[in-house]
Amino acid sequence: MRIGILGSGRVAQTIGNKLVELGHEVMLGTRDTKKLSEWTRSHGDGGTGRATAGSFSETAAHGEIVFNCTAGAASVAAVTAAGRSNLSGKILIDVANPLDFSNGTPPTLSIANSDSLAEQLQRTFPETHVVKALNTMNAALMTNPESVAGGDHTAFICGNDVDAKARVTGILTGWFGWKEVIDVGDITAARGLEMLLMLWVRLMGQFGSPMFNFKIAR
Amino acid sequence: MRIGILGSGRVAQTIGNKLVELGHEVMLGTRDTKKLSEWTRSHGDGGTGRATAGSFSETAAHGEIVFNCTAGAASVAAVTAAGRSNLSGKILIDVANPLDFSNGTPPTLSIANSDSLAEQLQRTFPETHVVKALNTMNAALMTNPESVAGGDHTAFICGNDVDAKARVTGILTGWFGWKEVIDVGDITAARGLEMLLMLWVRLMGQFGSPMFNFKIAR
Repeated sequence: MRIGILGSGRVAQTIGNKLVELGHEVMLGTRDTKKLSEWTRSHGDGGTGRATAGSFSETAAHGEIVFNCTAGAASVAAVTAAGRSNLSGKILIDVANPLDFSNGTPPTLSIANSDSLAEQLQRTFPETHVVKALNTMNAALMTNPESVAGGDHTAFICGNDVDAKARVTGILTGWFGWKEVIDVGDITAARGLEMLLMLWVRLMGQFGSPMFNFKIAR
Repeated sequence: MRIGILGSGRVAQTIGNKLVELGHEVMLGTRDTKKLSEWTRSHGDGGTGRATAGSFSETAAHGEIVFNCTAGAASVAAVTAAGRSNLSGKILIDVANPLDFSNGTPPTLSIANSDSLAEQLQRTFPETHVVKALNTMNAALMTNPESVAGGDHTAFICGNDVDAKARVTGILTGWFGWKEVIDVGDITAARGLEMLLMLWVRLMGQFGSPMFNFKIAR
């Protein structure tokens, strides 16, 4: 199917690579498509032909499903630039985190506690089904959960639309290989998923590696 | 040894019960010791003789190690009432969470992101070694991790003093039976441990049970 990915960085390219490999037609969206010339050359003209780059609005229009893989601080602007009508009725999988490095490392969050980035995106476009997902682990794990502990760990999702969450759960399990996806509630539960990053960055600092993930033991 | 536990609720009594069982002399601290008459009767006069109740300052003076098991909103006042000299040079194990239910359920945090309750307590008494621990699971698991998934999950600690963290790790593993204790850094890492509650309360809501815990898969 046609997938739009807002963003051009490591998360966007990792998810894009996997989707191209699975046979989907993938467009990555960016303000400056020159940044993606290497990616489209390796996958597009010189490769599968299924990898393209476009503006945020072209990418949103292209995708039957759209991922937000922009930096958290830029996400509301990027999704706004993608355009209300281009995203209306579609699933927007929000992978971004509102990390704020303005006071150094470790970061704080620019939105937290009584609001979240995912809620801001949902409020921006009420006709879009925002599903928070994949924001709680390193990019390398998102599409390859087996790379840590044989995949015995957890992906969390949340959102207001039950059908959209079922669809995203199917993408995570069927396309990306996740063994456990836990629905933590409506879009306000994204507060907890984004605030989890405050522990994630400390764990990464202690381990000296991002190759770990949370698992829920029951 | 002599242990002081600030608080009289379920967390304080659960930890107190376990420590009495292990043979320690335990004082629970409260503003109104009548609330603990049942607890001291069952463990104290009519039982082991090792369970007593006292004021916050009596409890802090009694303990060679002190737990903070008061409600997060009352913790700074309780620890202040416990008294600087009574806590000086001692380990204060901070189990509390700054949950704010003033806008209903699920709660927000009254302190988050750029500060934490544990940091407030550490700033209040710089001569005390504050170690955040056991705030990320239900009371029933704190002293009985085997009750979920055979104990195959994680307790997190943080604090500024390496020796104090080693001592608390020994308490968690040797006394309470934890198999994995992860040190997530200095006391500022308590932000991540307290913010984890925002996900914990959502998971409890989805599961309809508090009998789960986080595990780090590596």
